[in-house]
Amino acid sequence: MQEFLSDAIKPYLNRINAIRTAMTLIEWDNETGAPKGAAEYTANVQGVLAAEYQRAVLEPDFVKLIRQLKADENGTEAQRATGRLLDKEISKLEKIPIEEYENYNRILAQAAGVWQKAKKENDYAAFAPYLELIIEYCKKFAALQAKEGQKLYDVMLEEFEEGFTMEVLDSFFAELKEKIVPLLKKVQAAPQIDADFLHRKYDREKQKEFCLWLAEYLDFDSDRGLILESEHPFTTNLHNHDVRMTTHYYEDAPDSAVFSLIHETGHALYEQDIDDELTQTPVGGGSSMGMHESQSRFYENILGRSEAFWEPVYKKLTETFPQQLGDVTLRQFIRAINRAEPGLIRTEADELTYCLHIMVRYEIEKMIFEENVSVKELPEIWADKYEEYLGIRPENDAEGILQDIHWANGSFGYFPSYALGTAISAQIYHQMKKDLPVDALLREGKLDQIHAYMKERLHHFGAVKKTGDILEEFCGEGFNPGYYTEYLEEKFAGLYGV
Amino acid sequence: MQEFLSDAIKPYLNRINAIRTAMTLIEWDNETGAPKGAAEYTANVQGVLAAEYQRAVLEPDFVKLIRQLKADENGTEAQRATGRLLDKEISKLEKIPIEEYENYNRILAQAAGVWQKAKKENDYAAFAPYLELIIEYCKKFAALQAKEGQKLYDVMLEEFEEGFTMEVLDSFFAELKEKIVPLLKKVQAAPQIDADFLHRKYDREKQKEFCLWLAEYLDFDSDRGLILESEHPFTTNLHNHDVRMTTHYYEDAPDSAVFSLIHETGHALYEQDIDDELTQTPVGGGSSMGMHESQSRFYENILGRSEAFWEPVYKKLTETFPQQLGDVTLRQFIRAINRAEPGLIRTEADELTYCLHIMVRYEIEKMIFEENVSVKELPEIWADKYEEYLGIRPENDAEGILQDIHWANGSFGYFPSYALGTAISAQIYHQMKKDLPVDALLREGKLDQIHAYMKERLHHFGAVKKTGDILEEFCGEGFNPGYYTEYLEEKFAGLYGV
Repeated sequence: MQEFLSDAIKPYLNRINAIRTAMTLIEWDNETGAPKGAAEYTANVQGVLAAEYQRAVLEPDFVKLIRQLKADENGTEAQRATGRLLDKEISKLEKIPIEEYENYNRILAQAAGVWQKAKKENDYAAFAPYLELIIEYCKKFAALQAKEGQKLYDVMLEEFEEGFTMEVLDSFFAELKEKIVPLLKKVQAAPQIDADFLHRKYDREKQKEFCLWLAEYLDFDSDRGLILESEHPFTTNLHNHDVRMTTHYYEDAPDSAVFSLIHETGHALYEQDIDDELTQTPVGGGSSMGMHESQSRFYENILGRSEAFWEPVYKKLTETFPQQLGDVTLRQFIRAINRAEPGLIRTEADELTYCLHIMVRYEIEKMIFEENVSVKELPEIWADKYEEYLGIRPENDAEGILQDIHWANGSFGYFPSYALGTAISAQIYHQMKKDLPVDALLREGKLDQIHAYMKERLHHFGAVKKTGDILEEFCGEGFNPGYYTEYLEEKFAGLYGV
Repeated sequence: MQEFLSDAIKPYLNRINAIRTAMTLIEWDNETGAPKGAAEYTANVQGVLAAEYQRAVLEPDFVKLIRQLKADENGTEAQRATGRLLDKEISKLEKIPIEEYENYNRILAQAAGVWQKAKKENDYAAFAPYLELIIEYCKKFAALQAKEGQKLYDVMLEEFEEGFTMEVLDSFFAELKEKIVPLLKKVQAAPQIDADFLHRKYDREKQKEFCLWLAEYLDFDSDRGLILESEHPFTTNLHNHDVRMTTHYYEDAPDSAVFSLIHETGHALYEQDIDDELTQTPVGGGSSMGMHESQSRFYENILGRSEAFWEPVYKKLTETFPQQLGDVTLRQFIRAINRAEPGLIRTEADELTYCLHIMVRYEIEKMIFEENVSVKELPEIWADKYEEYLGIRPENDAEGILQDIHWANGSFGYFPSYALGTAISAQIYHQMKKDLPVDALLREGKLDQIHAYMKERLHHFGAVKKTGDILEEFCGEGFNPGYYTEYLEEKFAGLYGV
C-alpha cells in the first residue's frame, strides 16, 4: 500500500489518516448508534481530535515535505495530487487559530444533536443560536482564507468544488431555471400520474430485507461495507474496505427507502472502487463533492428510475409486497416513481424539481455570506423562495429551514455540488451509452458490468485526478449542463406527453 | 468537569483521553459491527493510534508535570491518584521502543480477527503464530519493565492488580482448591438438579426483549448506554455517559444471554456511576480489574442467582416464554440456574467451578512466562489441566485453548482478577447485608436502592482510591477470600443438601 509515498512523508500521513478515521467513526456512531445522553461528552473528544488533526497537518517538517512534493515536476500523478490537495488543506488551516478551530468543532459536534432534536420538535428557536455561531465562525474562517478581493461565499464554494464560483453557478442555475421552470409548468398542467399505491402500508422489516438485497444486486460488496439506518441517509468510509451507508424506512413510503439506498450505493461503490494503493491517503477519496454526487444521482435516477432497471427487479419487489403491489403493473410503477410534483423536502424531490430545492439553498447561502441576512429572518426567506420557485409554502420549520443537516455541520457551499453532480450524471450517461449497451445490461441484470465500467473509467483513481480532467478524459469535454436539461426535457416529454 | 486538574495538565490529558476514546470506539466497532473485510486496513489505524497514545503519554513536559503531581503531598486525593496512575503508565511505556509498540498493537488488531475465525473453525494452527508473536512481545516488554529480581509474570500481574503477585495468588488459589475441589466432589455425588427445560427452544428476539428490559430493571441508564450483541460478551465505555455492553443469544440456552447480561450490567453500572468530575480523566474508570469484576460477579451471581431476585422477575420471564417455562416453578428455576456441573467453557461456568477455570489459565500463564513452555504444547496442557481439576477433557481446541479472547488481546495476567473479583463480591455481600435489607429490597424489586448504595460506597470515586483502600473503608478489612469460600459452602450445602 501507498508505495507512491516516500518513507519521510508516510508517518505524517499515517497519523493524519488515523485521526481522520477516528473522527469519521465517531460521526458515524453518533448518527447510527450512540446513546442520546452521550453527545456533550463525546463532543469534547471530537473537538480535541479536530485540533489534533489541525496540528498534525501543520507540523512544520510535514508542511515542508508537502510543498516540495507539490513543486516536484518529476513526481507521479498521485504524488502531485497529494501535494496539491494537502497544500490546499494546509493553506486553509494555517490561517485558522487552533483554539478557535477546536471550539468550532466542539460546537459542531453539539449542533448535530441540537439540530436533530429541533427538527423533531419543530423548534427553530432552539437551533438558531447554534446556527448563528456556526455562521459566525464560517465567516471568520472564510475571511482569514480569502485571497485579495475574493468574496466570502466564493471561499466556501471553493472548498467543495474548485472553479465553481458564484459567477459560474449563477449562470448554471439561470440555465436550469430557464429550462426547468417552464417544463414543470407544462407537467403540472398535464394529467397527473397515480402514485397512491406507494402510500399503502409497507412493513419496515421487509423494506429492509429488499434494500439489503438491492445493494448487493447493484454490486455493493457487503464484506467491505455496512448498511444501517439513520434519520438522514448518508455514506461514509473508514477506507475502501469499510464503506458504510444508511437509509431510512417509512411504512407509507417504500420508495423513500429504496431510492435513498440506491443513491447511497452510488456513493458507496465509488469509495469501494478506489485503488488499495490510494486508500488511507489524502487522494484515497472521491475527486470532488460534485463528482461523488454524480455517482449517487446516476444510480438513483438515471439507472434506478428507468424501466430497463426495474424490468428484472420489479418481480422481486412485488413478491416482497404482494398485497401492496400485486395490482400494480411495471409500467404504472415506473410512472409513479418518476412523477414530478413540487414538494417541500429536498431528499424526497423528484428529478425535475430537485435542482430548484438546491437553488433555494444556494440563494440563501449567498444572502447569508454576502448580504449578512440574520438567522432570525431565514425561515421566512426560505418559505418565500419555496413559494416562488415551487409554488408551495412550508407550514412549519421542520419541513422548511430545519430539514437539512448541512448547516449544522458548517457545510455552507456544499449544496451546489448536488446540482452540479446531477448535471454531471447526465453527461456521464450520454457518454456511457456510446460505450455500453446500457439498457440491455440493465434488462439482463448485469449491473456488475456497468459497475466495472464506472470503476475503470471514473472511480479507481480516487482524487488523483481533478473532476474537470476526469470528465475531459472520459468524454472529451469539460462540464456541460446541456446534457442534463436535454435529458430532462426528453424524459418528461415522454412521461407526461408534453 | 475536571476541576481538579490544572490548566497546564489539561490539554495533555484531553489529548490522551481523545486517543484512548477513539481506540475504544474502534475496538467496540470491530466486535459489534465492522465489516469482516475491514480488519487489515483498520488495524493500520489502530497501530498508529496506539503509537500516538504512547507518544502523548511520554511528552517530556507532560512527564514532568505528572511527576510533580505525584510528588505533591498537598494535592487532593484525585490529583495524587492521577499522578500515581499516570506515573505507572509512563514508567511502563517509556521502556518500550515506540516502533515495537506500534508493531505489537498492529499485530493485536489483526489477532482479534484471526482468533475469532480460528475459534469458529476450530483451527488452533491458524492462531498459534499470532499467539507466539504476542507472547514474545509481552515477554520482551515485561523484561524491559521488570524491577531487579522481579519475575516476568509478576510484571504482567501487576498491570491488572497491584500487590497480587504469584506468591499471593498461589496461596489464594491453594485455598480455593482446598475448599472447592472436595465440595464439588460432594455435589457431584448428590442427586443432580434438572435443568433440561433451559435447553428448550427460546426465540432469540424474545430473549433480547427480556434482556433489554432486565438491564433497565437493574437500573442501567439506557440514555447513557447501549446494549448490542457480540460473540463474547463485554462492556466498554467512551465515558460515563456512554457505557456499552453486549450479550449473546443462543436459542437453546437463554440463561447464557440472561446471566451474561446481568454480569455486564454489573460492569456497566460501575462505569455509569463514576463522577462527572472524573470521567474522561485517568481516574475516571474502575479502581482495578478485580474491583470491576467484583461488581459484575456480584450482580450475576450473588444477586442474579438468588431466589429473592427472581421472585418479582420470574413472572415476566414466564410471560415471555409461556410454552417453555409454564410448567416450571420458581423453585425449580432457581435450582436449575444454580446447578453445579463441571463444564469446558469458563463463561458458562457455574459459581462453584468458575474459579477452577481461572486456575487452569493462571497456571498455564505462569508456565508460559516462567517455564517457557511452547505455544505448540498449550492445547495438550490445557486439556490435561481440565481433566485434572474439572474431570472433563475438551474434545477440540475451540472449546479448549481457543475459547477466550484474552491472549489474542495480549492480556496475560488478567484472568486472576476474575477469581479475585469473585472473592471480593462475597466480601462485599457480607458487609452489605449488615447495612441493607438486601433480600427484602430484591423481593420488592428495589434494585435502584441497592444500586444507590453501590454507587455511594464503591463506585462514584472511580480510580481515585485503590482497591485495597476501598475495601478497608467499606468493610474495615482488606481482601479476605474467606467470605467467598464460606458463601460457597453455605449455598451449595443448601442446594444439594451436602
